[in-house]
Amino acid sequence: MTNITMIRAAAERIKGHARRTPLLSSPFLDEIAGRRVLVKPECLQHTGSFKYRGGRSAVSALDPEVRARGVIAFSSGNHAQGVALAAKEFGIPAVIIMPADAPRLKIENTRAIGAEVVLYDRAGGESREALGDAITAERGLTLIKPYDEPQVIAGQGTTGLEIAAQAQEAGVDSADVLVCCGGGGLTSGIALALEADAPGLRPRPVEPEGFDDVTRSLISGHIETNNQQSGSLCDAILTPSPGQITFPVMQRLCGPGLVVTEDECLHAMALAFQRLKLVAEPGGAAALAAALFHGDEIEGNAVICTISGGNVDADVFQMALNRFEG
Amino acid sequence: MTNITMIRAAAERIKGHARRTPLLSSPFLDEIAGRRVLVKPECLQHTGSFKYRGGRSAVSALDPEVRARGVIAFSSGNHAQGVALAAKEFGIPAVIIMPADAPRLKIENTRAIGAEVVLYDRAGGESREALGDAITAERGLTLIKPYDEPQVIAGQGTTGLEIAAQAQEAGVDSADVLVCCGGGGLTSGIALALEADAPGLRPRPVEPEGFDDVTRSLISGHIETNNQQSGSLCDAILTPSPGQITFPVMQRLCGPGLVVTEDECLHAMALAFQRLKLVAEPGGAAALAAALFHGDEIEGNAVICTISGGNVDADVFQMALNRFEG
Repeated sequence: MTNITMIRAAAERIKGHARRTPLLSSPFLDEIAGRRVLVKPECLQHTGSFKYRGGRSAVSALDPEVRARGVIAFSSGNHAQGVALAAKEFGIPAVIIMPADAPRLKIENTRAIGAEVVLYDRAGGESREALGDAITAERGLTLIKPYDEPQVIAGQGTTGLEIAAQAQEAGVDSADVLVCCGGGGLTSGIALALEADAPGLRPRPVEPEGFDDVTRSLISGHIETNNQQSGSLCDAILTPSPGQITFPVMQRLCGPGLVVTEDECLHAMALAFQRLKLVAEPGGAAALAAALFHGDEIEGNAVICTISGGNVDADVFQMALNRFEG
Repeated sequence: MTNITMIRAAAERIKGHARRTPLLSSPFLDEIAGRRVLVKPECLQHTGSFKYRGGRSAVSALDPEVRARGVIAFSSGNHAQGVALAAKEFGIPAVIIMPADAPRLKIENTRAIGAEVVLYDRAGGESREALGDAITAERGLTLIKPYDEPQVIAGQGTTGLEIAAQAQEAGVDSADVLVCCGGGGLTSGIALALEADAPGLRPRPVEPEGFDDVTRSLISGHIETNNQQSGSLCDAILTPSPGQITFPVMQRLCGPGLVVTEDECLHAMALAFQRLKLVAEPGGAAALAAALFHGDEIEGNAVICTISGGNVDADVFQMALNRFEG
C-alpha cells in the first residue's frame, strides 16, 4: 500500500526527470467560477500527462535485473506514453497493449517514443488480458498497472506534494482540490500527499457523466462499476471501476465526487485555450469544468484543479473551439 | 539606458507578481530541429505574453504621485494588456490607444482588465500620436512606451535572467537564444541579462518576412525601416524600426537576425499545440519556427527560443491546425 514515505521516495527518484509544473491562474476564470481558481497543468508534463510521474516511479523502483527484461502496460494512451518514456530512459524494452480505437496521436506517440505497440479490438471483445499474459510469460516482462499499483500511485502522488507547496506559496491553505479521475491513481496519490502536507486541502474526484463509478462508490461505500466502457470523448479517464488499492484511500480521504458533462469539458478546453494558453484533452479538462461550472457544489474562496493531460487530436480540439469560442 | 543593475532591480519589483515561466522541451521537436530545443513559454505569463513584465516594471518604477494620475500606452494588444494589468494592480487609471483592426481577443481582454480603450483607424491614417498627446496632456497621464523605455526593457530583461539560470540547470552553457523581435524590448533586455549571467548564450532576433527591420539594421549598422506596417498575422511583432535605445544594445550583443515566413510560424504553432500543449500566437511562434526550420543558420548542439505570447483568436489558431496537422 502506498504511503507518504513512498511518495517522498518517488519524488526523490523522479527528481530532475519529471517536470515540476507551475500553478497557473487567470482573473477571467476566477470571474466565471466566482472564486479563485488555481490550475495544476500536468498537460505540460513530459509525454503530455501526469502519467509519466507514475511510469517513471514504477520503472525506477524495479529491481535492476527484473527491470532489464522489460515492462508491459495496458493503456488507451497516456499511461502508455508515460511507461514508454520511462522504459526508454532506462534503455529497456516496453510492450504496450492499446485499444485500436485510441486517439491516433496517443498511438503514434507511444510508437515514436520507442515502445512496441500491440493493438487489440476493444469493440470486438478481444481479451487484452489474454493477449498480455501470453506476451508477458514469453518474455519475462513486468506488468506496470495504470493505477492499482503502489509505486504508480506514489509517482502520481508527487503531484500532490507540489500542489501542497504551491498552494501555500499562493496563500491558500483551505480549498477543494479537484482531480480528473479514472481508476483513482492520481486522486489517491494526491490525497495521501495532501493528508501529510496540506490537511486543509480536500481532494475530490471529478468524472464524466456516465462514467461516475468513483462518485457512486464513495456514496455507496462499495466498489461500483460503469455500465459502459467507451463512448465518451474523455477517453483518458474511462475505467470500469475504482481500484482495489485506490478506493480505500479515496474513501478515507476524499470529499464527494463531482460529475461533469462532455460539453462542459469541451467548454473548459476552450477556456483553457483562451485564458491559460494551454491545450487540455477532454478528460483532462474535467476538473477545470467542475471548478468553472459546478461552483455550487464546491466550498471555499479558492479551488484548485488539475489539468491531467493534453493529448488531444486536432479535430476534437477544434470541435471545442468551434462550439465554445465566439 | 537599461543596465544589468536595473534588470535585477526590476526582477525584485516584479517578484511574486510576474510568473517564473518554466523551460520546456520535447524529444519530437529536438528531432525536427536536429538539436536540443529549449522553449521559454511566455504565453504562460500573466496576460498571455512577456509584456506584463515590462508593464509591471515600468509602472512600479514610477514616483507614487506621478503614478497615481494614471498611465497611457499605444499598443496593438500585448503591451496594452501588460500595462492595463499593472495599472489595475496599483489601482490607477490606464488609457490604451489601440488600432481598430487589432485582434478582437486583445481588445476585449484589455477592456476586461479595466483599462479605457481608445480605438483609432490604422488604415485611414488617423494619427494615434495626436490622439494620445491630447489625452495625456488633459489628464496628466504618464506614457509607457512599448519598447524604447529603460524600465520596460529592464522588465523584459528578467526573462533573460530566468533563461540564464534555467539553461544552466539544463546543462546548456553555450547556445543561440532566439527571441521574437518587434521593437527590440525583449531582445535587448534578454541580451543584457545574458551578457551578465550567461555569456555563452548568444541572443538573436527573429522577425517575420517583410518586417525584418532589425535584421537589416544589424547588417547595415543603421536603423532601417519596414516598408509596410501591417499585413502579417504576426501582429505582435510588427514595428516600423528598432528603437533608439534598443538598437545600440542589440548591435553590441546580438548575433545575426533570422527571418521566418508566416507559414513557418503557423507550422510552429501547430507543433507547439501537439508537442508542448501550448497556445502560441503567430508572432509568438516566430522564434520556435526559426529553431525548427532554420537549423542551418543556427550554431551549437542546443537552441533556446522564446514563445513570446499566446493571444490568438480561435480562427487563426484553427487555420494553423488545419494547415499543419494531418
